Amino acid sequence: MRATFLHGPGDVRLEEVPDPVIRDPRNAIVRVVASCVCGSDLWHYRGVTAKPDEPTRIGHEFVGVVEEVGSDVSRVRPGDFVIAPFYDCDMTCANCRNGFSTSCLERGSWGGKDHTGADVDGGQGEYVRVPHADGSLTVVPGGVPDDALIPSLLTLSDVFLTGHHAAVSAGVRAGSTVVVVGDGAVGLSGVLAASRLGAERIVAMSRHEPRQALARRFGATDVIASRGADGIRDVKELFDGIGPDAVLECVGTKESMDQALRSARPGGQVGFVGVPHGGPELPVRTMFGSNVGVRGGVAPVRNYVDEVLPEVLSGALDPGRVFDLTVPLSDVAEGYAAMDERRAIKSLLVP
Amino acid sequence: MRATFLHGPGDVRLEEVPDPVIRDPRNAIVRVVASCVCGSDLWHYRGVTAKPDEPTRIGHEFVGVVEEVGSDVSRVRPGDFVIAPFYDCDMTCANCRNGFSTSCLERGSWGGKDHTGADVDGGQGEYVRVPHADGSLTVVPGGVPDDALIPSLLTLSDVFLTGHHAAVSAGVRAGSTVVVVGDGAVGLSGVLAASRLGAERIVAMSRHEPRQALARRFGATDVIASRGADGIRDVKELFDGIGPDAVLECVGTKESMDQALRSARPGGQVGFVGVPHGGPELPVRTMFGSNVGVRGGVAPVRNYVDEVLPEVLSGALDPGRVFDLTVPLSDVAEGYAAMDERRAIKSLLVP
Repeated sequence: MRATFLHGPGDVRLEEVPDPVIRDPRNAIVRVVASCVCGSDLWHYRGVTAKPDEPTRIGHEFVGVVEEVGSDVSRVRPGDFVIAPFYDCDMTCANCRNGFSTSCLERGSWGGKDHTGADVDGGQGEYVRVPHADGSLTVVPGGVPDDALIPSLLTLSDVFLTGHHAAVSAGVRAGSTVVVVGDGAVGLSGVLAASRLGAERIVAMSRHEPRQALARRFGATDVIASRGADGIRDVKELFDGIGPDAVLECVGTKESMDQALRSARPGGQVGFVGVPHGGPELPVRTMFGSNVGVRGGVAPVRNYVDEVLPEVLSGALDPGRVFDLTVPLSDVAEGYAAMDERRAIKSLLVP
Repeated sequence: MRATFLHGPGDVRLEEVPDPVIRDPRNAIVRVVASCVCGSDLWHYRGVTAKPDEPTRIGHEFVGVVEEVGSDVSRVRPGDFVIAPFYDCDMTCANCRNGFSTSCLERGSWGGKDHTGADVDGGQGEYVRVPHADGSLTVVPGGVPDDALIPSLLTLSDVFLTGHHAAVSAGVRAGSTVVVVGDGAVGLSGVLAASRLGAERIVAMSRHEPRQALARRFGATDVIASRGADGIRDVKELFDGIGPDAVLECVGTKESMDQALRSARPGGQVGFVGVPHGGPELPVRTMFGSNVGVRGGVAPVRNYVDEVLPEVLSGALDPGRVFDLTVPLSDVAEGYAAMDERRAIKSLLVP
């Protein structure tokens, strides 16, 4: 089969690898119907994180059709259309049961290792061996869905539910006032998630017209194009001079976290899902004085998908609008380049 | 009148100062019936924080009888027995209404300045001018209470409700599993607060037998005497190997925050009220990976007192047990020394 490899900064290639096989009775093999490029893939692509010593498999978001299952798999059958979370989990351990399957005691990583130390396929390829099929995979009722639904279903693998996690972590509820820092696919998903949770006012921080437009479509009531100290001032002006209840930090830089922390009202909450890069650490004295809490991290999407799936299937929720570029897997390099150059918000890959 | 001054590390003195007078129609003058020494006073006393350039008034927890009120004061009358929070607030601004009176837009500090920049008396003295009498003061129904209730009422000025804030910030609710880091008066108050909120299991981290005993009296189900990596291991062993839902950080050092963050289960929450000293800042990458949230800070006790006061008056709640030393104001230096040397958990001062 063909699978995507990262060779180094800016160097993504599709290469031939052996087809995956069942290695354990709990495994399944999934034929990928759609995958995509994540903002966090770009950190590696840009060489911000350490360059791998050798080419590495990449991609962690995919939906597809189950081809084969191991003898201990009971919830998933060949032919099922499934959504995979961006990590492998068993959904039976204490952490999974607590709602944090990202801390599964048998967690595995697509393109990395499973809990036994065996290699696992990346999502940007044709097939993936799923270590815990019954835990990880969500079966979409009704079989293979209409093509038009696939982008939105794919967002339940990571991006929409990561935005949802930011909103949940920030304590967004009916009537909340919300600011979203970051206008990438996760930030835009955060706007939609906050809207879905009943936020009364949602400010998207964005300087890019197409992203502003999508933010408004997703429920943003206001858009602020300024940043840094000016952005904080403009935000506070909108909210009694003190700031909003909740800020969703969807970037992961020092500047974005600083802006988020200083924008929230006293006693407010920052929900963060941007993978932290560039430190420094959180300023605990500032947090102490303002009582602004910080909560978030790697999103336990597997624990959220069942709640949101019916709304996607009914068409009530259309998070798939974050995809504004579709390329064949053979053009995966263009999918990365377009996001890197901000020509695309998010690239969808089809076989 | 007599009032306490901090002259420098280890040097606390009672000195003669002019009696306070009404300066603004919203003021009241309160005759202090009981005050006390706070763990945060010890940071100044020990010279951990900068030595003041000149002697400063000190003390921020007091209860007393209203002697005189300004012409705009309507909720408080001469003769009322009142509880003051450890700061002055108006309870009408947006932050006060949001539940965070510690961020009052007209906040003042006992022993420091009011919102106009005028000096305010410290709590460890005979009289205090209260800038926002209607905002700050809680009237105890029934007039001057029985002497036996005074210690518990005094804890509503700061210490018990600071422990309560740690528990609330950590998300403690019925059935929660909780670890309390710190066995000072705030930590012990956190144990009692967690118990009051219905926590199922409460672990007090303490190596001091009398504090362990009070922790158990306040509702601790377990006591762990180990610290650092051993303490974290022992905590995790008690909770499925993954840790408790909530950790109350009631110290404020690098070591205590580190222990708190590493003790909580994935997706758990640290509620912190220890005034941060000794950095470094919060490790955002660790928080990202574990989804452990951090929330807390300076406790908005004025927003909590009405909820708890009836339970104190009925005797159902006895947070005043944290006081194990009572000294006359003339012996204030001994009140400090006893706490500094850990001979006392908390010192109560009477005129």
